[in-house]
Amino acid sequence: MPITLGPNRYGKAETRVVALRRGTDRHELADLNVSIALSGELADTHLTGDNAAVLPTDTQKNTVFAFARKYGIDQPESFGLRLAEHFVATQPAITHARVEITDYAWQRVGQTGHSFARGSQEVRTCVVHHDDQATHVLSGVTDLVLLNSTNSEFWGYPKDEYTTLPETTDRILATAVTATWRHATLDVDWAESHAAARHNLVDAFTETYSYSLQQTLYAMGWRVLDKQPELCEVRMALPNKHHFLVDLEPFGLDNPGEVFFAADRPYGLIEGTVLRDDAPTAGPAWE
Amino acid sequence: MPITLGPNRYGKAETRVVALRRGTDRHELADLNVSIALSGELADTHLTGDNAAVLPTDTQKNTVFAFARKYGIDQPESFGLRLAEHFVATQPAITHARVEITDYAWQRVGQTGHSFARGSQEVRTCVVHHDDQATHVLSGVTDLVLLNSTNSEFWGYPKDEYTTLPETTDRILATAVTATWRHATLDVDWAESHAAARHNLVDAFTETYSYSLQQTLYAMGWRVLDKQPELCEVRMALPNKHHFLVDLEPFGLDNPGEVFFAADRPYGLIEGTVLRDDAPTAGPAWE
Amino acid sequence: MPITLGPNRYGKAETRVVALRRGTDRHELADLNVSIALSGELADTHLTGDNAAVLPTDTQKNTVFAFARKYGIDQPESFGLRLAEHFVATQPAITHARVEITDYAWQRVGQTGHSFARGSQEVRTCVVHHDDQATHVLSGVTDLVLLNSTNSEFWGYPKDEYTTLPETTDRILATAVTATWRHATLDVDWAESHAAARHNLVDAFTETYSYSLQQTLYAMGWRVLDKQPELCEVRMALPNKHHFLVDLEPFGLDNPGEVFFAADRPYGLIEGTVLRDDAPTAGPAWE
Amino acid sequence: MPITLGPNRYGKAETRVVALRRGTDRHELADLNVSIALSGELADTHLTGDNAAVLPTDTQKNTVFAFARKYGIDQPESFGLRLAEHFVATQPAITHARVEITDYAWQRVGQTGHSFARGSQEVRTCVVHHDDQATHVLSGVTDLVLLNSTNSEFWGYPKDEYTTLPETTDRILATAVTATWRHATLDVDWAESHAAARHNLVDAFTETYSYSLQQTLYAMGWRVLDKQPELCEVRMALPNKHHFLVDLEPFGLDNPGEVFFAADRPYGLIEGTVLRDDAPTAGPAWE
Repeated sequence: MPITLGPNRYGKAETRVVALRRGTDRHELADLNVSIALSGELADTHLTGDNAAVLPTDTQKNTVFAFARKYGIDQPESFGLRLAEHFVATQPAITHARVEITDYAWQRVGQTGHSFARGSQEVRTCVVHHDDQATHVLSGVTDLVLLNSTNSEFWGYPKDEYTTLPETTDRILATAVTATWRHATLDVDWAESHAAARHNLVDAFTETYSYSLQQTLYAMGWRVLDKQPELCEVRMALPNKHHFLVDLEPFGLDNPGEVFFAADRPYGLIEGTVLRDDAPTAGPAWE
Repeated sequence: MPITLGPNRYGKAETRVVALRRGTDRHELADLNVSIALSGELADTHLTGDNAAVLPTDTQKNTVFAFARKYGIDQPESFGLRLAEHFVATQPAITHARVEITDYAWQRVGQTGHSFARGSQEVRTCVVHHDDQATHVLSGVTDLVLLNSTNSEFWGYPKDEYTTLPETTDRILATAVTATWRHATLDVDWAESHAAARHNLVDAFTETYSYSLQQTLYAMGWRVLDKQPELCEVRMALPNKHHFLVDLEPFGLDNPGEVFFAADRPYGLIEGTVLRDDAPTAGPAWE
Repeated sequence: MPITLGPNRYGKAETRVVALRRGTDRHELADLNVSIALSGELADTHLTGDNAAVLPTDTQKNTVFAFARKYGIDQPESFGLRLAEHFVATQPAITHARVEITDYAWQRVGQTGHSFARGSQEVRTCVVHHDDQATHVLSGVTDLVLLNSTNSEFWGYPKDEYTTLPETTDRILATAVTATWRHATLDVDWAESHAAARHNLVDAFTETYSYSLQQTLYAMGWRVLDKQPELCEVRMALPNKHHFLVDLEPFGLDNPGEVFFAADRPYGLIEGTVLRDDAPTAGPAWE
Repeated sequence: MPITLGPNRYGKAETRVVALRRGTDRHELADLNVSIALSGELADTHLTGDNAAVLPTDTQKNTVFAFARKYGIDQPESFGLRLAEHFVATQPAITHARVEITDYAWQRVGQTGHSFARGSQEVRTCVVHHDDQATHVLSGVTDLVLLNSTNSEFWGYPKDEYTTLPETTDRILATAVTATWRHATLDVDWAESHAAARHNLVDAFTETYSYSLQQTLYAMGWRVLDKQPELCEVRMALPNKHHFLVDLEPFGLDNPGEVFFAADRPYGLIEGTVLRDDAPTAGPAWE
């Protein structure tokens, strides 16, 4: 029963690069967290410690900074593509590159042209996979926290001996959206496509009269694909951030859906995929 | 050398209450984290375990929820005042109440009137102190992250044998503002005063040509007090979120203030108070 | 191009259950965080909001608590198996259950038999997958932070135009081990097997003279499989927690490997799998 | 009503220094997080941006590393004292230095003499205040998580209209101890005194039959002062980490104190001071 090396990858995680484009009156700011993972013919370093194929993660970090200067940072997707292609093209042993980027949004404040405030906790994400076979781009959002204070019901579920939950025809539905969508093509206006997808997710969340968070999840994914032909698949993880109606009867008070306890843990977690029937194969895109 | 009990307090921390006001077409949402600390004649429970004076922290939590229903939540300051006064008025042994509130902002999304998205990571804060002698109200913000991409210098500092920092006449100045201001009176429009203070802090940050973060801190506090007669003191803690210019020379590239490494730790930390000469005594307000 | 529902699952995440076995003189304490994910014929709730197949996540939570009372909590693996089997056996629509458990360690303190202190930040983990086809059990650790202060080199790597890292023949090697191993059988003494695996990981880390963190990773996985026939695969993620030697020359001091800056970000991240050639197929075990 | 500058300070926070003492066969490891805050005649930089008195925080960081090399790191208290005295002695404008240190514990693993594992999440803390008037040293612990699974009651408390909590004569008592003690003298064996104080806190926690967490807090502080003449004051913050007995009656099960839900928020928070009658004045020690 020999023991062997299986799938492996390595790289520099969380390089925090801030790039400024200095116009005369107005600066543009890009603020990214870049994580690189390379794979290929890397058995030697595992088996013998021979590093002839191991481009140092420090060099990867340097490349992020150098590319930010050389090419600027326009969209995270285009920056990620450039990095992924570079490592595969220049390192003989590296056959596959994965670049994951978190893009922090800043909003302009004041009248100066050079003043900014960090926006929402919500962040824009992307993942690029590149190898000889194919290039895949995922885009997404995390920590987009949404809440509907009505138009959400939950009933008709199976009851067993451990069920105590009462059915409800009016509850708060709140979640922190993590959504990632796969592009069917690389010929995309990344900024426009991202803005549309975020918009479609929010619209579907707000407009769906919900009988389950699963239904809302599917409606969100469906809306994105229905409106955006450049996308072929959406994956979502939606925690059900429970808001429990507080029992105020002991204090002689009613509570007609007005006072809630926002619980931390446990929480429901709904995960699902919505995709086109003719979606191209995903390959390593979701790894 | 007898050993004795010194200052002490207790209470329920971090009660997460969400209150909904359901209008016909439009819901209003308040989302607070409430921490209560009571003090008074509490020696018995410490010395003998006699709890005759110890209103359970569970009861304090219940009171938060009941008051949210009975009186609604308008502004965190008014809600905090009501709670603080209640405990001192109804519990003979309790002579002092401190109520600290974090107010999470939500923004409307969609067209429904009942759909919301969590806004910025920035939160609004307040602290109420109430006893027989006086009532103090502090308001504030935390995690207001601001950045000026120019108009910041740092030079002229003392050099000793451990100094290696080069002087600079152009750097990124970034910070996460924690600011708290003390009200000179309770006759305040809390919402309006808070909005004005936040606005004044941001304006002073963006408009100050800065030679040190201390100078910016003072300008921010001064602006608030200069514009807002209802306030008498501002305290701030400003981490200097360092953005280091990356040396790209080894790669044959210049870097004219365009590519930066956003560092986590260590960071400078500037703390300071700005106050009116005739500010009333703060008493326990800052405890 | 019809749009369809892809893979999906749902369940209650992070139920924090503490179970006490009260002996006469000595209590036993189990402290778990249990996350359940169920999948099966769940299309209806996504497409129409019909919840006839959706056992509420609240019921899942109740089941965790009830089973803790009914059966006690011995090892996390056996508790997870019981839960996973229960949902598949009793819910017609549920064909697959995944139960993930984090086990927090407490150590006895004092002489009382009922006093405990939380141990290391390190936690024990397990994941159970169960369906009609097969049952898989993974066990593991996370946040096992290890450091060798010597016997680590890094050199012989490719240099490109972005490489500035100097080669080193003596560095600190530090990491926070996340390791997960797959059991080839269910006939295991879970406690003994876990203790052995942890021991083998630590031994291999400390005893390996390292030329790359990849080499150490492989040595750790190999040691576990070599010593433990009940295991067939080990997956690891090892962040390279960089300790940079501080340049003290500007202060007239040498630094012969004695003073380091412990950096937060970025960090190297090494991920790899070590497995037996005859490992049974993993099926959904790693999902 | 002129506006003026009030109390202020600045410095480098969270310098992460790791120092190795390399013996022939056995290395010693110190791992600290050092935060420095300096105050004095610093009005100019606030009012005009003149930095002639502002030793850069970067220099402070360098000093931490240089001192680690020059003098080694023995105990955090002695290292903090050396740093605090240095800044006051060498910077004319600086009249007061505050040095706060977090000391992360590592335990030896393996047989190598150079291999370590991070110990508990619990950390050792100290704060040094130094100026012309006096030097104060505080030592402490944070995140020392303790639990008694019995010998804790809570009853006899006042009931008002918002009270629903049932009285109990047997509950889990769990807390995460933050304790800080003040030294009456600087002539202390820091390591021995710290070990004794931690031991006394744990002993008092485990041995106290508790009628309230306040009683336990006082017993812990009293024990430390009673046993350790070198200490004059103890301050503690004890969150009451609630473990709620789960109601299993709906499932036909009893629950004789065996299955609990470990809640996150809200939690009780008990804060208190225990001190000697003849404790010297604390001055700025607790700022």
